[in-house]
Amino acid sequence: MDPHRALNYARAGRKRFVSELTEFLRFPSVSSQPERAGDLRRCAAWLARHLKKIGLDHVRVIPTKGNPIVYASWRRTRDRPTLIFYGHYDVLPGEPLSEWRTPPFVPTLENNALHARGAADDKGQLFSHVKAIESYLKTEGALPVNVICIFEGEEEIGSPNLSYFVERNRRALKAIAAVISDTRMISADQPAISYAQRGGLRAEIEVHGPPQELHSGAFGGAVHNPAMALCSIIAGLHDEEGRVTIPGFYDEVREWSGKERSSMARSGPSDDAILRDAKVEEGWGEPGYSLYERTTIRPDVSVNGILGGHTGHGAKGVIPASALAKISFRLVPDQDPHRIAQLLRDHISRVTPSTVSVTLRTMSSIHPALISRSHSAVQAASHAYRKAFGKPAVFIRSGGSIPVVHTFQNVLGIPAVLMGFGLPDDNIHGPNEKFHLPIFYKAVETCIWYFKLASTLGHSIREPQAKEWSL
Amino acid sequence: MDPHRALNYARAGRKRFVSELTEFLRFPSVSSQPERAGDLRRCAAWLARHLKKIGLDHVRVIPTKGNPIVYASWRRTRDRPTLIFYGHYDVLPGEPLSEWRTPPFVPTLENNALHARGAADDKGQLFSHVKAIESYLKTEGALPVNVICIFEGEEEIGSPNLSYFVERNRRALKAIAAVISDTRMISADQPAISYAQRGGLRAEIEVHGPPQELHSGAFGGAVHNPAMALCSIIAGLHDEEGRVTIPGFYDEVREWSGKERSSMARSGPSDDAILRDAKVEEGWGEPGYSLYERTTIRPDVSVNGILGGHTGHGAKGVIPASALAKISFRLVPDQDPHRIAQLLRDHISRVTPSTVSVTLRTMSSIHPALISRSHSAVQAASHAYRKAFGKPAVFIRSGGSIPVVHTFQNVLGIPAVLMGFGLPDDNIHGPNEKFHLPIFYKAVETCIWYFKLASTLGHSIREPQAKEWSL
Repeated sequence: MDPHRALNYARAGRKRFVSELTEFLRFPSVSSQPERAGDLRRCAAWLARHLKKIGLDHVRVIPTKGNPIVYASWRRTRDRPTLIFYGHYDVLPGEPLSEWRTPPFVPTLENNALHARGAADDKGQLFSHVKAIESYLKTEGALPVNVICIFEGEEEIGSPNLSYFVERNRRALKAIAAVISDTRMISADQPAISYAQRGGLRAEIEVHGPPQELHSGAFGGAVHNPAMALCSIIAGLHDEEGRVTIPGFYDEVREWSGKERSSMARSGPSDDAILRDAKVEEGWGEPGYSLYERTTIRPDVSVNGILGGHTGHGAKGVIPASALAKISFRLVPDQDPHRIAQLLRDHISRVTPSTVSVTLRTMSSIHPALISRSHSAVQAASHAYRKAFGKPAVFIRSGGSIPVVHTFQNVLGIPAVLMGFGLPDDNIHGPNEKFHLPIFYKAVETCIWYFKLASTLGHSIREPQAKEWSL
Repeated sequence: MDPHRALNYARAGRKRFVSELTEFLRFPSVSSQPERAGDLRRCAAWLARHLKKIGLDHVRVIPTKGNPIVYASWRRTRDRPTLIFYGHYDVLPGEPLSEWRTPPFVPTLENNALHARGAADDKGQLFSHVKAIESYLKTEGALPVNVICIFEGEEEIGSPNLSYFVERNRRALKAIAAVISDTRMISADQPAISYAQRGGLRAEIEVHGPPQELHSGAFGGAVHNPAMALCSIIAGLHDEEGRVTIPGFYDEVREWSGKERSSMARSGPSDDAILRDAKVEEGWGEPGYSLYERTTIRPDVSVNGILGGHTGHGAKGVIPASALAKISFRLVPDQDPHRIAQLLRDHISRVTPSTVSVTLRTMSSIHPALISRSHSAVQAASHAYRKAFGKPAVFIRSGGSIPVVHTFQNVLGIPAVLMGFGLPDDNIHGPNEKFHLPIFYKAVETCIWYFKLASTLGHSIREPQAKEWSL
């Protein structure tokens, strides 16, 4: 099946594609805000209608304990391989709204980029797959490969219900690889394929002091302030140089060979590039590692949010009753999130003074993942990039976590092909998130090429994952 | 002038007094919230109308740069001393509202106490003075002493505009003492007069990291997290034992004689009593001092609020752009708030790492104050308590700060007579603040007696304040 008619269709349809993506971005499908559940349902229904319209079969909105999964497939050729396309239609909150130039759920075209929460992460990238599928179906009436689409609504909260779905349907989900576009390129003209993802563990540390706020004049100096006790606990998570102090935290962290580290230094972003992307002047963290290494092969823990006492206008002379920190670990092979949760629990109970009490809640955890760069479905992605961008992809490690990568590997035994289309300055997770339109158009074309290139792959490539784990 | 007709009037009027106080408490006169300025104006107007109605002269609502001062006087006797009655009609915020059993600005009668923000601090106590004045004017047509009422609307934000008013009007405000009911009793049957107030200094420490939130997967471990840097700064304000670490912080702190400390141990609350009031099991703070001493003759710094990053529902994997802590120092003789502000500034710039930047804002400051226990206007208050409560007052130090005490001493050269009517469990500054009605009734009677007892004092008692400062 020649891809050129599909490519021409995609080029001719760009304007419409953007206006459809704009519709998709209007849903405030924030999975971490329970009051948005209706918006997530409406967004899923919109997406399902769209998949039906472009000609996919078996379109379903599958309920879960949380937000629904949008499922669709096209499996009409017996002699071609099957690919899973995974993406997520849920997004992070828009808050803090004051930092956005335009409202996060009013998609705005500016400097040839669509600005909205979820523009790059992940609605825009997911939509590139959808438009590539449409381009074939509307021109050829068929796809070069069999396709299963799994678009979930809970990625940003750790995909709590997806593993169950994948496990229960492992037979029906037989495929050679899962294609995921939810990562970044090196720059607008240098595509990248991610071959490593950090794992994660979220936790909330809540320190309780007096049962109610106290007057800080009457009691200040005599009653332990829970906000200050929390600060001590948080400050104590790192030593002065930026190493995590939790005993045993680094025990399972894999050390990489000099060869791998040199290869990372060649292919990955420089310290300068990372600082430029972050818009900060100086790096921070564990000594002995480049910034790229610190964000990929080294683990860390961040405070994502902290709250306690009077935070409104003006002053209120109180000792708060409690204070809360939301923290998240980023884990690397061979750290096990469950073991890290236990180490954290032990550490917190050791360092909590008797003058306060601590509630520790550990939430969603994600296993770190490595993907074979030599897997032919991964190599095909690099070729597809070359067709669309004129350059093959470089292979990079990613600091983030896509929970399902580990699930696809572990349950289905297939690699995730992480074809990213985000740009380093897309402000993923931050205010003014955007998706660059020229990249969107090339992303659709890359996917069109990928369908073509993947169509010649064997039905059931099962290259051993374990090989990669001992790189 | 015999006080019995006034006393009988007050007893007969109790029910009405409570219903008037309820009206007064309904104004959400929160001085720290600029959007409440209209409520403060309406509350001041209500109070002024009330003072006019009970028969005071020269009632004025005096505008300031902030909230107005309600002024009234009754100066019709040439041969009697003049007393200033000071109180404040502004209150702290009701937030966090979820911790209130009843809304803070819907006064609710429960267990013989009126529950509302400001019930004890200070509307209820201020109103005791007003009702005592009314009881004389409505029965005798006159007061036993001359009276100046100064009721301000900015006490809870550090009285930023009151000093200017007092200084500009120092001649017109000639008096022998300023009576302030804005402190606490030991218990419902043990009245207390405060002879020491801690000073204060408020500050906000804001740590800035990247110019926008960053993805904690992409950058965690390589970019300094401002919430974590803030935690280190806050944690570093105390050593492990609870002593403040800011160099020079204790340099000017006065050491008290064994005699004074023994007398404090006898008259002041025990550690157990303080823990019971705070509803905590264990004390905290500077070693070598009782809890009463830690909250009165020793200085401290508290975090009143802390905020940074994502604090809403669920998770958001970000490195915040900034984090903020609101802190307040409680200072003791002979600490100077301006010098402490400079020490803090020096300390913060010394401990801030180069990976983040800090904005330090120091706000309202209050000088610590000591009041002569032997001043006859103070002694008269103790006698008045004996008349109403059957027991003379004990003299205690207070951990809080009433900014105007130092102003009255410094500018007018007169002592503040701190006749407190709050109970230790009134939850001043906390949720479910209340004012116990039997105490309200006795407070009115105590004031009625005080008028009578003060009427025999000389016109211009000017006992040297300095004497007390070398106790």
